[in-house]
Amino acid sequence: MNFGSDNVTGVAPEIMAALVAANQGAAIPYGDDESTHRLQEIFSQLFETEVVIFPVVTGSAANSLALSVITPSFGAIYCHEDAHINQDECGAPEFYTGGAKLVTLKGEAGKISATDLAQRLATAGTGVVHRVQPAAVSITQATEAGTVYSLEEIGAITQVTHSHNLKLHVDGARFANALVTLGCTPAEATWKAGVDVLSFGATKNGAMAAEAVIFFQPELAKTFGYRRKRSGHLLSKMRFLSTQLETYIKEDLWLKNATHANLMANRLATELAAIPGLELRYPVAANEIFIYLPETVISELFAEGFKFYRWEPGGDLSLVRLVTAFDTEPEAIAAFVETVKSCLIVS
Amino acid sequence: MNFGSDNVTGVAPEIMAALVAANQGAAIPYGDDESTHRLQEIFSQLFETEVVIFPVVTGSAANSLALSVITPSFGAIYCHEDAHINQDECGAPEFYTGGAKLVTLKGEAGKISATDLAQRLATAGTGVVHRVQPAAVSITQATEAGTVYSLEEIGAITQVTHSHNLKLHVDGARFANALVTLGCTPAEATWKAGVDVLSFGATKNGAMAAEAVIFFQPELAKTFGYRRKRSGHLLSKMRFLSTQLETYIKEDLWLKNATHANLMANRLATELAAIPGLELRYPVAANEIFIYLPETVISELFAEGFKFYRWEPGGDLSLVRLVTAFDTEPEAIAAFVETVKSCLIVS
Amino acid sequence: MNFGSDNVTGVAPEIMAALVAANQGAAIPYGDDESTHRLQEIFSQLFETEVVIFPVVTGSAANSLALSVITPSFGAIYCHEDAHINQDECGAPEFYTGGAKLVTLKGEAGKISATDLAQRLATAGTGVVHRVQPAAVSITQATEAGTVYSLEEIGAITQVTHSHNLKLHVDGARFANALVTLGCTPAEATWKAGVDVLSFGATKNGAMAAEAVIFFQPELAKTFGYRRKRSGHLLSKMRFLSTQLETYIKEDLWLKNATHANLMANRLATELAAIPGLELRYPVAANEIFIYLPETVISELFAEGFKFYRWEPGGDLSLVRLVTAFDTEPEAIAAFVETVKSCLIVS
Amino acid sequence: MNFGSDNVTGVAPEIMAALVAANQGAAIPYGDDESTHRLQEIFSQLFETEVVIFPVVTGSAANSLALSVITPSFGAIYCHEDAHINQDECGAPEFYTGGAKLVTLKGEAGKISATDLAQRLATAGTGVVHRVQPAAVSITQATEAGTVYSLEEIGAITQVTHSHNLKLHVDGARFANALVTLGCTPAEATWKAGVDVLSFGATKNGAMAAEAVIFFQPELAKTFGYRRKRSGHLLSKMRFLSTQLETYIKEDLWLKNATHANLMANRLATELAAIPGLELRYPVAANEIFIYLPETVISELFAEGFKFYRWEPGGDLSLVRLVTAFDTEPEAIAAFVETVKSCLIVS
Repeated sequence: MNFGSDNVTGVAPEIMAALVAANQGAAIPYGDDESTHRLQEIFSQLFETEVVIFPVVTGSAANSLALSVITPSFGAIYCHEDAHINQDECGAPEFYTGGAKLVTLKGEAGKISATDLAQRLATAGTGVVHRVQPAAVSITQATEAGTVYSLEEIGAITQVTHSHNLKLHVDGARFANALVTLGCTPAEATWKAGVDVLSFGATKNGAMAAEAVIFFQPELAKTFGYRRKRSGHLLSKMRFLSTQLETYIKEDLWLKNATHANLMANRLATELAAIPGLELRYPVAANEIFIYLPETVISELFAEGFKFYRWEPGGDLSLVRLVTAFDTEPEAIAAFVETVKSCLIVS
Repeated sequence: MNFGSDNVTGVAPEIMAALVAANQGAAIPYGDDESTHRLQEIFSQLFETEVVIFPVVTGSAANSLALSVITPSFGAIYCHEDAHINQDECGAPEFYTGGAKLVTLKGEAGKISATDLAQRLATAGTGVVHRVQPAAVSITQATEAGTVYSLEEIGAITQVTHSHNLKLHVDGARFANALVTLGCTPAEATWKAGVDVLSFGATKNGAMAAEAVIFFQPELAKTFGYRRKRSGHLLSKMRFLSTQLETYIKEDLWLKNATHANLMANRLATELAAIPGLELRYPVAANEIFIYLPETVISELFAEGFKFYRWEPGGDLSLVRLVTAFDTEPEAIAAFVETVKSCLIVS
Repeated sequence: MNFGSDNVTGVAPEIMAALVAANQGAAIPYGDDESTHRLQEIFSQLFETEVVIFPVVTGSAANSLALSVITPSFGAIYCHEDAHINQDECGAPEFYTGGAKLVTLKGEAGKISATDLAQRLATAGTGVVHRVQPAAVSITQATEAGTVYSLEEIGAITQVTHSHNLKLHVDGARFANALVTLGCTPAEATWKAGVDVLSFGATKNGAMAAEAVIFFQPELAKTFGYRRKRSGHLLSKMRFLSTQLETYIKEDLWLKNATHANLMANRLATELAAIPGLELRYPVAANEIFIYLPETVISELFAEGFKFYRWEPGGDLSLVRLVTAFDTEPEAIAAFVETVKSCLIVS
Repeated sequence: MNFGSDNVTGVAPEIMAALVAANQGAAIPYGDDESTHRLQEIFSQLFETEVVIFPVVTGSAANSLALSVITPSFGAIYCHEDAHINQDECGAPEFYTGGAKLVTLKGEAGKISATDLAQRLATAGTGVVHRVQPAAVSITQATEAGTVYSLEEIGAITQVTHSHNLKLHVDGARFANALVTLGCTPAEATWKAGVDVLSFGATKNGAMAAEAVIFFQPELAKTFGYRRKRSGHLLSKMRFLSTQLETYIKEDLWLKNATHANLMANRLATELAAIPGLELRYPVAANEIFIYLPETVISELFAEGFKFYRWEPGGDLSLVRLVTAFDTEPEAIAAFVETVKSCLIVS
């Protein structure tokens, strides 16, 4: 009954089984093993184009390494002010780029708009030596608010991005959850919409520690290998990382897991929103719910053993975040709703 | 029959079993889980002093993060010219320190000497703004030549290091192999000999991907957490990393594994050296053997399916490196020796 | 008749004369000359406390080097969103600190408020590894809006700054102009109000290319010399830099120059504001005026040869910036006002 | 009678006069003034090709900024172990490149050889992610040993450099002294011999503080402006920097000054070498002399007021460095020689 985050989960059984199975004999280290080699092919098939894929162990590494390829040290990266890269990575993008600046945009429900982006870029001082130079745009899909950019929204953003000669990065820590919601192909959600590089997340959706940086233009990937090694992110026993990613997309495990997580979130949101007096902060499009709860209810939920975060502590009413995952049990949803209801009826 | 490196191995069965066992229920992410908390205590017991330990996934990350704590951007790190940090990490220490300089020393059998170090430090220009400022000394234990620093050698180096107000770092990618050879306690091999910070390796000796940075002076560790997060090396599902380290030292698994690897190396070295005409490059003190082999023998070994590296290609005679590991089978040793012998008799 | 900036000016005659006079015989390079040695003493006298002073050639160098001393790579620097360090230095603070983040605050008339700062620091995540760590606050005095922080305002900001264990930096590119307005001593305007380090500007107020970083706590200065050398900012023929600073404060030249510049700005602002329909954007407290002018007037001024910047282009009405300097002639003020008046009467 | 360095000198009278003359009226700041614009043209004429030139105030800035353009953070720069960039800039190249590695070569008389360079590049691990990637070669002309690379030597080095897709940088802090010795055109000494980017020194040969980075391939210069601004090396009152460079090459002042300095060095070396028992360490080809002197002689010289550096302190005999400059007086040479002779006759 832990709704704290989707990274409180363990490893999906299919992936743990694959790890055990991969533990046979010797393998060439540092990514020259068979499993890692296969990734190039199976991800190119998945995305219906030739991609270059680099496995890493964390989302912060994926994001920062990806951004370091497309942003010079004197560059600027445009992102939502609540973006994980801006708020929750202790300055990792600045470290990896050698001191680029994150320029933040406001935007409802965790999304930046193409219009705002265009306005900012118009006065950014491109070509003026006193100003950091616009280099990249980074959006999060699904967003930090649990919402999902539509293909139209992405297309509009990439249009602005590319018309200024910038590159578009997607932080896809919850890419599977977004994709299930969009109901489109991985290709449509990425390069066909203009995405240049994707941080492809697997950890939150069932892997042990596996993310990947995926380049949709192979020439962008040229320096990545050096940057990954140089930052200590090239594993020696790489097969155990690649196996996770391989299993993750095999037989649509990633979609199955994300579908379940989204379903649980949708159910929880729907049932909570139906309770008089409760209000969702954002529309629920993936596996995160932001909702205002009375402090009395929050206290009772904690007392009952439910775990989750107060996102914005308030007075009587606080905004809380509830995250579902691939292993969330329907019983936990029911129990949560029941507890909330009993509190509100009592009070 | 792969003697290419100790990182061609898989995961020790005890550690894989622990990973499977750790996959139960939810756990607080980012190191606030129970297993990670336990590490502080069990490693403090192991080292007989209060240590601060930070798990990471690679040796390059461990080394570079450790060095970044003790070296300012304008600092100098003294190390052997063949040190892994100087040769094989694509400039990771320079990246993590913000541009410090590695000042290299020559030295027989992979070791620097206290005398050479003292001479270099005497003319290093401490306090002169034109010069990078001496900040750290890094030695590798066991060394890149498969030799082991004696406690007296370490003591002499730390004496010079500390008398110049520098800190001593040990790259212990094969620390277990060295410790078994030294036959002393972990405390004696480290802080009692003056070591300030240790990169404690586990991956090569049975873990999946687990190393640790261990500080013997807690105040040195103050900024480490931010640096680890900022470099993308703080895993969310940390329990699966900490479990590896916990299991690694539990019931002396690490010493058992290293003892076996060293024994296999010793046997292989002894039997090869007994063959007329063959010469070891360095005394074999851990699990690495450097030996000159005729190219005809090398070709035959490759043809038979043995894997290893030509370290220094020569004409008729090349220097090769043979590495044993926790899972090296005695039969592989025997087969290797047999093949070499049969070649040399034939030729 | 150039009101574009105070850096369109040449060198004050007293300073040029000093440069010529300094060109006698040989001098020890890199700051061991007599003039540079004298700076320590005369600036300590000027500030009534023992300071450590480092001359450099630009304000960006002064700001970035100063900030790099008080901000770790994982740190955060709090400043006004319009601060020169945030807008006009192409990411220099990020470069010099190794990737620290500038966290920006809004604030009327170019000033941040102690209240806003306290609110931001309260939720900054101090001690949380996911967040950049608050390290420094930087204010500009006089501000980019041509206003001046009162001693009370500085005191309130330093109180918040120090209570969170941060350091206070002042970008004093126009420090002389502010000091003249405050009418207090240099000590009162800086360390007595809690300032830790000052970028002391001279270039805009009469020097050729001379700024200084002044530390009010000598222990903060320990690494500065290395950082300055490492960034290429240690001049060999340092006497020609130090002489500028020495002459700048000798016989109160700096105050005389700033008094004149402020007087000219005040006169220009007063006369313009008296013209019906014209509105100052900010109160004029130093040597910068921000005022809305009709585009017809702007065109006529340009046609007459006046130089200045449209700060915020509008439709009929644009915000312009007018900067006076130590050498602004009263006739230029009169001519400017006359042209504006004639335009407005005509139209 | 100061032979300590050529930077103990003041400013050549022609250049000081030009600075005084430049102090007229207002000028557009940050390099948009007329003098700076002229530099592009007059240096293109001087080098007989279209160059892009950026003035800066120090040689360390010129070298580091130049190298940062041609070396990625994971790159390697090959240079002589005694190179100024390796020994005397407190790690500036590492800072500006974001942590590239300087790989040092030995070589007699301050020169690297094309043969040694080729050997090192052959085993450098190009394309191997574990290794820093060869990116640039930097030579010093005239060298730190006071010798001069011949055009043939430069040609051989550039041939190796370019065949490995590296760029060639020349640290020309004493470029004028070398050029005079070579007796060729600036074009022949640089781009016609394969030089890609030159740090063009003026300070040691008569300027106040003026160096320039000169790109012989305009496309290499694209990011330089941002890097210069970002490091605080874009002066606001740029005319006073550009004027120095303009005057420096006008009417061959630079060659006149260097010719004089070289002549003085040659005379001093010739007369000293003629004294029985004295030995030059290197052939004297520019304005630096390295010679072994008895300590008794050194003491007497110091007592007589001569200033110079013991380069390598010995027992009875030390290696000293004597540097002549544009303003060295023949009388000082005579007096130095006389003092040495009188000592040796007495002793």
